[in-house]
Amino acid sequence: MTHDIKALFFDVFGTLVDWRTGVARESERTLAPLGHTLDGFAFADAWRGEYKPAMEEVKSGRVPFAKLDALHRRNLERLLPRFGIGPLPEEIMRELNLAWHRLPAWPEVPEALARLKRRFRLAPVSNGNISLMVDLARHNGFAWDAILGAEIAGDYKPKPRVYLAAAEALDLGPSECMMVAAHSYDLAAAAALGLRTAHIARPNETGPGHGESAPSVPVDVAAASLADLAERLGT
Amino acid sequence: MTHDIKALFFDVFGTLVDWRTGVARESERTLAPLGHTLDGFAFADAWRGEYKPAMEEVKSGRVPFAKLDALHRRNLERLLPRFGIGPLPEEIMRELNLAWHRLPAWPEVPEALARLKRRFRLAPVSNGNISLMVDLARHNGFAWDAILGAEIAGDYKPKPRVYLAAAEALDLGPSECMMVAAHSYDLAAAAALGLRTAHIARPNETGPGHGESAPSVPVDVAAASLADLAERLGT
Repeated sequence: MTHDIKALFFDVFGTLVDWRTGVARESERTLAPLGHTLDGFAFADAWRGEYKPAMEEVKSGRVPFAKLDALHRRNLERLLPRFGIGPLPEEIMRELNLAWHRLPAWPEVPEALARLKRRFRLAPVSNGNISLMVDLARHNGFAWDAILGAEIAGDYKPKPRVYLAAAEALDLGPSECMMVAAHSYDLAAAAALGLRTAHIARPNETGPGHGESAPSVPVDVAAASLADLAERLGT
Repeated sequence: MTHDIKALFFDVFGTLVDWRTGVARESERTLAPLGHTLDGFAFADAWRGEYKPAMEEVKSGRVPFAKLDALHRRNLERLLPRFGIGPLPEEIMRELNLAWHRLPAWPEVPEALARLKRRFRLAPVSNGNISLMVDLARHNGFAWDAILGAEIAGDYKPKPRVYLAAAEALDLGPSECMMVAAHSYDLAAAAALGLRTAHIARPNETGPGHGESAPSVPVDVAAASLADLAERLGT
């Protein structure tokens, strides 16, 4: 089955990096010197909570495609008053938004990606924009072959165009590509187009005990971690 | 001057890789077993000679944008009869076209790129398509931050869109980006948009003594090699 696979496509937020810890830590670090003490995890959860509705506006065509950085920024502006924080200087807003560019990888990820790269082409197929993916790669030592995903496709996952544009960019058919994600909805969309799928368990993604410990849809491989996937794909 | 530079954009064919030697060698290797002996260098020169007219058709809007691989393939079909070679099996045609995916780097390039990467974001801004850039990177050990260029922009250099799309993808202004190329026309187009420019001397690109040993337009840096550029940029 896995002999025909030429490329692995990765979801990034939640699958490769721990957005919740990263955003919580960075937000506390940026806001504390201004006298704002806040529950970083609650802030991260609320910020991420605005993600799907913002994405929905783009996917439905109600608003034109914008980089995820721009959506994060709009969501941040909506969010601050809810945490009792008034208008902030532009440079602080920019700094806060860059929290998403400095997220830490789950511990096993960098080494597992290096193993997988020996045999497969690797690309993020994330809703994150190119510069965001570049910064996360530099921050965590990910060695991508190319950065694919929403910004290349001009639309957001789980729209079919995003997965198909990624395969086309590498001159591959869908069945030669495997989508790797910790989210069943992402894998279901990829599988419907003929891509192979691998689920990575992230049982604590959105807090202790809150995350997908197993896929809720059929997948080709259900792995306990990225290292487990590297093992099962024979790398 | 160079303190503000955040990203280096690279021309690839001629600047980083020796297309002439690579295409000559690969074409001879592929055609010899079929009984076709040919002057590989003449074949490479003729193939490359079709590049600008093909590009012109796309840039003028007469034909829709197509990946460089597709233009190379069309040019190959026009070329073979001129070398007295009749129709070839599809798999040989595909193999021949992949000659462009296996070009060797000029000797100093891989190490110089590794040095430059410590300080700058690095991306090819080439007319080559994404899969072609991925293969050249794997073949030669180039570690790109992202693959930008014609396929992202949907047009070919020296059209402004290609340079501007690359800067926008990294959230940078033109003056924060430096175009690195062995071709003055490429640098002139980039400079006109506000990018910084570096010329790399490749005096033998199209044969002994045939290539740009110095820029014919004003540039920010005129370097003898990529190692020289790495030195001058303080890496």
